[in-house]
Amino acid sequence: MARLTEDQLISRFFAPLATASGARGLTDDAATLSVPQGQHLVVTTDALVAGVHFLPDDPPDLIARKSLRVNLSDLAAKGARPLAYTLCLALPENWSEDWLARFAEGLRQDGEEFDFALLGGDTVKTPGPLTVAVNAFGMTPTERIPRRDGARPGDSLYVTGTIGDGALGLLTRTGRGDLDALPEEDRSYLTRRYLLPQPRSALAGAVLAHASASMDISDGFVGDLAKLLRASQVSADVELEAVPLSRAVRNACAHDPACLERALTGGDDYEILCAVPLGERSVFEGMARAFGVPVAWVGTVTSGDHPARFLTADGRERTFSHGSFSHF
Amino acid sequence: MARLTEDQLISRFFAPLATASGARGLTDDAATLSVPQGQHLVVTTDALVAGVHFLPDDPPDLIARKSLRVNLSDLAAKGARPLAYTLCLALPENWSEDWLARFAEGLRQDGEEFDFALLGGDTVKTPGPLTVAVNAFGMTPTERIPRRDGARPGDSLYVTGTIGDGALGLLTRTGRGDLDALPEEDRSYLTRRYLLPQPRSALAGAVLAHASASMDISDGFVGDLAKLLRASQVSADVELEAVPLSRAVRNACAHDPACLERALTGGDDYEILCAVPLGERSVFEGMARAFGVPVAWVGTVTSGDHPARFLTADGRERTFSHGSFSHF
Repeated sequence: MARLTEDQLISRFFAPLATASGARGLTDDAATLSVPQGQHLVVTTDALVAGVHFLPDDPPDLIARKSLRVNLSDLAAKGARPLAYTLCLALPENWSEDWLARFAEGLRQDGEEFDFALLGGDTVKTPGPLTVAVNAFGMTPTERIPRRDGARPGDSLYVTGTIGDGALGLLTRTGRGDLDALPEEDRSYLTRRYLLPQPRSALAGAVLAHASASMDISDGFVGDLAKLLRASQVSADVELEAVPLSRAVRNACAHDPACLERALTGGDDYEILCAVPLGERSVFEGMARAFGVPVAWVGTVTSGDHPARFLTADGRERTFSHGSFSHF
Repeated sequence: MARLTEDQLISRFFAPLATASGARGLTDDAATLSVPQGQHLVVTTDALVAGVHFLPDDPPDLIARKSLRVNLSDLAAKGARPLAYTLCLALPENWSEDWLARFAEGLRQDGEEFDFALLGGDTVKTPGPLTVAVNAFGMTPTERIPRRDGARPGDSLYVTGTIGDGALGLLTRTGRGDLDALPEEDRSYLTRRYLLPQPRSALAGAVLAHASASMDISDGFVGDLAKLLRASQVSADVELEAVPLSRAVRNACAHDPACLERALTGGDDYEILCAVPLGERSVFEGMARAFGVPVAWVGTVTSGDHPARFLTADGRERTFSHGSFSHF
């Protein structure tokens, strides 16, 4: 079968996604991006590599959606509304039109769901694994977005959703670990959560208005919390019982207690971790409810530069041998 | 030797380059990008893969600078002033701190030369080749940037610099082709031009003010001209004698006439091709002189949808078997 040229490939699969006016249907060398008066641009970028961040045989539409969602998750944690993205796609020799059509369908789906338009990109071939680099643009009405370094003693710590699904989902997806005894329903839930994280874009407004510090949890709850506390030069007491776990993770932990450590320190959550001053808790919780995003109080920021203390229900302190996931 | 963590790697090599205020020293998950009142943002992205766009053993500082320059070239062709960039770097297993230090030094050097600050990025590991994806931001005082589709019959066609150095430089760099008979001075000139293209940022203002259509030549003069003409629904008469060639390319063509076709159709020029209305020629040429960018008139835009005619000095038409470089 004759291969599409790069221009054909772009016009067939990607141009239909380039709905932003400045993208000009991807027919030019650059796009223009207009930022509405009074709005500020938030920029973040995350790359995913086959065999490192996803499995080469993951469904192409889910690879595409995960590529967008890990970036959307960063925007949400910074209180920004999704605006547009650029895409650099390095395709291995064995790409097929069918694969690419399904990949583009994934982009289309999440582009619509999150009102996130393709602005431009580059498609190159690689002798290595599929690599997807997304550069995401969001907007906020203020430059004072929540950073990692704003948490203050007395603030409450919150996380969205549930923690550890992604880390255990990697095990169910790959068949590693010993989770075969889990009900099929739990296993497929965990796999799905690994393949398709849920960016908490609906919480962006509440985070922007009420969080003193915020980040998304991508390298594990314990390690990312440590990063936020270090940046803020504070510590924290965390109630382990309060950390929200899905039924599937609870079942896995009942089956194998080692799963708890993996759930709390593994990566791929893409939930928001944020600190909220005491006086803003009820408004923050109210907004989260109004926007349908589950949030859970998990502890309190304290003063000092010692690592966070993780307290069990009986008041004992628990430590973790692995802090967080690191690529290097 | 213990490997640096991702955070250490970022703070040691990349944070010093993040001089834009919104980059916050790369200590957070996202950056803010402020666009001055009345300015518009131009966005472009280009990825380079080892073994495809450069050789794995090219000097790391030149790989870094080429990664920026292919993007700077796009900004220049669109009349935009460089503002900032994000960098996604996929590092193979065998990276070393020395390699990375030299790569970062290349970024620093061109960042200073082009006033182009690192805004954010992502560093991941890859089981494949080194891959560098840059997302570049430029500014213009108007949204009406020169596109590919604005050329009109009667406009003059210009190119900057010289054509074909990069394509022949790939041969001298790799030892392929038969250019050993060239003087060492010519060979090292060509290799250098392949390794380190010269973005024509100084011409951005003239292009913005006077070009009816513009693009950078990355996939070969003949093929990229065809793209510009097709987008503009016009044709052109090109005087082959007028296409500016370096002494090294002229020497190579004297040695092997097949070099001319390679020079005119090969890639990696990163020069600007633009169309300028007749009445603006003298001002455009004057601005180019004032800003020290060599420009050469190479032909005239004509009406019709036939391919460009390439005319030799004796008035005959020449055709090329390969139109342009395509990755797929």
